[in-house]
Amino acid sequence: MDSQEFRDCAKTVIDMLADYYDNIRDRQVVPSVEPGYLIKTAPEDAPEEPEKWENVLKDFNQTVMPGVTHWHSPQFHGYFPHGSSYGNIIGSLLCDGLAVMGFTWRASPACTELEVVTMNWLGKLLGLPQEFLNCSPGPGGGVIQGSASEATLVGLLAAKEKTFRRLLKKDPSIDKDLIKTKFVAYSSDQCNSSVEKAGALGSMKMRLLPSDSNCQLRGETLKKAFAEDKAKGLIPCYVVANLGTTGTCAFDPLYELGPVCKEENVWLHVDAAYAGAASICPEYRYIIKGIEYVDSFDVNVHKWLLVSFDCSAMWVKDSYDLINAFDIQRIYLDDVKSETRVSEAEVTVPDYRHWQMPLGRRFRALKLWTVLKMHGAQGLRKHIRNHITLAEHFLKLVHADQRFVVEPKPTLGLVCFRLKNGDSYTKQLLENLLATKQIFMVACTYRNRYLIRFVICSRLTTEKDVEHSWRIITNEADLLIGPTHINGTLKEKNTHSIISTKHLEPVNNGCEKSQ
Amino acid sequence: MDSQEFRDCAKTVIDMLADYYDNIRDRQVVPSVEPGYLIKTAPEDAPEEPEKWENVLKDFNQTVMPGVTHWHSPQFHGYFPHGSSYGNIIGSLLCDGLAVMGFTWRASPACTELEVVTMNWLGKLLGLPQEFLNCSPGPGGGVIQGSASEATLVGLLAAKEKTFRRLLKKDPSIDKDLIKTKFVAYSSDQCNSSVEKAGALGSMKMRLLPSDSNCQLRGETLKKAFAEDKAKGLIPCYVVANLGTTGTCAFDPLYELGPVCKEENVWLHVDAAYAGAASICPEYRYIIKGIEYVDSFDVNVHKWLLVSFDCSAMWVKDSYDLINAFDIQRIYLDDVKSETRVSEAEVTVPDYRHWQMPLGRRFRALKLWTVLKMHGAQGLRKHIRNHITLAEHFLKLVHADQRFVVEPKPTLGLVCFRLKNGDSYTKQLLENLLATKQIFMVACTYRNRYLIRFVICSRLTTEKDVEHSWRIITNEADLLIGPTHINGTLKEKNTHSIISTKHLEPVNNGCEKSQ
Repeated sequence: MDSQEFRDCAKTVIDMLADYYDNIRDRQVVPSVEPGYLIKTAPEDAPEEPEKWENVLKDFNQTVMPGVTHWHSPQFHGYFPHGSSYGNIIGSLLCDGLAVMGFTWRASPACTELEVVTMNWLGKLLGLPQEFLNCSPGPGGGVIQGSASEATLVGLLAAKEKTFRRLLKKDPSIDKDLIKTKFVAYSSDQCNSSVEKAGALGSMKMRLLPSDSNCQLRGETLKKAFAEDKAKGLIPCYVVANLGTTGTCAFDPLYELGPVCKEENVWLHVDAAYAGAASICPEYRYIIKGIEYVDSFDVNVHKWLLVSFDCSAMWVKDSYDLINAFDIQRIYLDDVKSETRVSEAEVTVPDYRHWQMPLGRRFRALKLWTVLKMHGAQGLRKHIRNHITLAEHFLKLVHADQRFVVEPKPTLGLVCFRLKNGDSYTKQLLENLLATKQIFMVACTYRNRYLIRFVICSRLTTEKDVEHSWRIITNEADLLIGPTHINGTLKEKNTHSIISTKHLEPVNNGCEKSQ
Repeated sequence: MDSQEFRDCAKTVIDMLADYYDNIRDRQVVPSVEPGYLIKTAPEDAPEEPEKWENVLKDFNQTVMPGVTHWHSPQFHGYFPHGSSYGNIIGSLLCDGLAVMGFTWRASPACTELEVVTMNWLGKLLGLPQEFLNCSPGPGGGVIQGSASEATLVGLLAAKEKTFRRLLKKDPSIDKDLIKTKFVAYSSDQCNSSVEKAGALGSMKMRLLPSDSNCQLRGETLKKAFAEDKAKGLIPCYVVANLGTTGTCAFDPLYELGPVCKEENVWLHVDAAYAGAASICPEYRYIIKGIEYVDSFDVNVHKWLLVSFDCSAMWVKDSYDLINAFDIQRIYLDDVKSETRVSEAEVTVPDYRHWQMPLGRRFRALKLWTVLKMHGAQGLRKHIRNHITLAEHFLKLVHADQRFVVEPKPTLGLVCFRLKNGDSYTKQLLENLLATKQIFMVACTYRNRYLIRFVICSRLTTEKDVEHSWRIITNEADLLIGPTHINGTLKEKNTHSIISTKHLEPVNNGCEKSQ
């Protein structure tokens, strides 16, 4: 492919993508393919000869696209949003076009410096204290990690090294290996799978403590756990507080957990993967109350801030804690700046390779930069507020239908709901909805009940789209348990086959099945 | 930005990028900026209002571009290549355009399936044994990781869990925490920093064993280390063999290390980050001799196979070893396929989230797919062979100049060389060359000597470009120590100021300074 062919091909792709978003409402959200659809049909070997770009794009449309779940369809309400925007595509294009690596300042100065600049910008927008910013005189700063999973593990490993060094200073005779086996990490039973995984990957016991009836991990619970473990000779080391749990978007109170951690010299990390972004709007900033107690804070910019995966923004109060855990030197990585990372000078240029696990790093700051500039702070706040308003609109629709219960109290862009008939019905409803391929949602549990999670995900979503999603849901509910005003016989074990509404039972508020 | 503005802006960027590559030879490889150049001058806050895309691109050209090191300039000879090609940009554009996540099959079926297909294609091209491929009946398969760093750590964590389970089966009374502190990992003293880092991150002692005079880790050395550690009550667990070390591109003999590992039930991982790609050419396949002993094998497709970071291709013989180490379940991650990952059925659809550390995963297979299709196996082989031929051309040029020594014997696209005058001169020469900003190289050490590494990196490089690079090098050598035929007075302590050649000593083959 020469540069002229590239111009032609890439411009064709640009039009394909613009058309894709212009017409995304015409698409079925969930693809109609069975496992193995592509593995079974694709050629067994890579082509020996180069293929013309026209054929590659044709093949893409004929074989890849039919297996794509459309995350940016307004009827995609699963998980949490995956950020995307035109500005993001531009930034990513520049990043992939330049294709530079930024493991040292020298390897591509702009790569490191633009990351410092944009992480300061974003940290200020979120209302983080000065000490988390690179532009403050202290050793704090922000860095782009690949994922919240990675950030949680980075925090854990840094906490482990820091705790070890502290204990070694107190008692130089301690057994390095043995002492580390006594370290304990904590989070709530509502934490994301990646938090539990960080314990497994980082070789640290991870206790998932019981959350309260609002799915929050409380200070008293943490304090009790610390005391129990200390009594067993274990050493509390790392706590992951969740701002916006994946299940129900619950918030652990940093202002309660913080003082408990402070007292015991325990590292407090915040996994604010989805919800943290809301802190760019002053009216939602209350969610980070207690941030001053925190050692590290992570928000997935690639969730709710219109930037695509991977762009997880992590700030630390003391970057030396990362460097102590991650710095491995080699002559071929010599950098003009490495010895003066944090200096008395006016400007601090970090060696980001010591702030992360891998050596390689892309120019990810470019997409954050283009999005921040093309949307402006105002545009991003508008986006967040719009999603929350749309979730409130959905809430009203659910409330008006007596067959459904909304619980817990909805937060930000998430509304969880269930059928009053009980879990088996709610589960069946979700299965039937997914089988329509017209809408995508996933489940969670709350107080041992099965809930359907409805999240506003696409940046394109309007009130009309929300109403359309709700119509899809109520249509399937009608088929499963009958319209709210119709009597009939309730079928206990349902399948996806269409059920005539005349056979359905009326809704019975008082007879929810126990789980 | 609406879809029409996106079309306009993105097409402008496409032309910018095509122009960039068309005219890359006009650019200075290393930017003329000082640390802090952007941090000091960028606005302190993100813009409040959206900026027009024309202004964002203007700002990009005025503030970001001046700080970019041009990795695809034919005069960039640093580190190892970072893959890039027009086909890669197309694939990345499709990936960022669709912006889907692929942590389960259901989350976007094409994302998982295209990865299976392309990893089978690539595995076959590299000549990997059937058991590493997903298309074989066993539990083997390939997965795209973010980096070789990540793959090395994934292998280490899997080895740790596997060894623990094996020991637990033998003796159910063992102390889980204590036993793991006895595990030891091994690599050669020539390994990449990321290998050493994997030990630190994965909480495993990492011994860097002495390589021989060819920078290879030999079977006998490993065997001795195992015996020493076992005598101390330690447990050999994980070995990282290097195919193409970062310093001198040395190859550890898998056929020697393999049997030693086999005998002791130790996991053998191969870090073939750069050099592994050469195995797509039958004439270089000898480098993977002994591959049948290997448990996991990793090649950075984003180095030498025209795909940009991040795309590190990892194959394992038994994917259950990964799943056992990485599987954490959650209801919201329920997948239609999760329970039948490896089945008796004709087709195996992996749950890739259990094959990696983070939960999130992009549609990275798209760029691998577009590159494999647009270049074809022939195109990729041609690219590899072209780089090796160009390195051989460079070698001839160095050999013809009596002021230089080439050592060790060059491998693939890398030629290491030094001035006969000794390390301080070689070091000074590299500094002077970097100061010209016209060429980029980094250093390494070999037998305690300081060497300059010259790597063919850009896919655009021609013989003329190599000759141009050599002219830049010899010009600076002339300034530093005088042309090869001129007598004069040798200056011991040189700086970057231009030195008149009449003051320079003749080259003295016999008086290399001891280090």
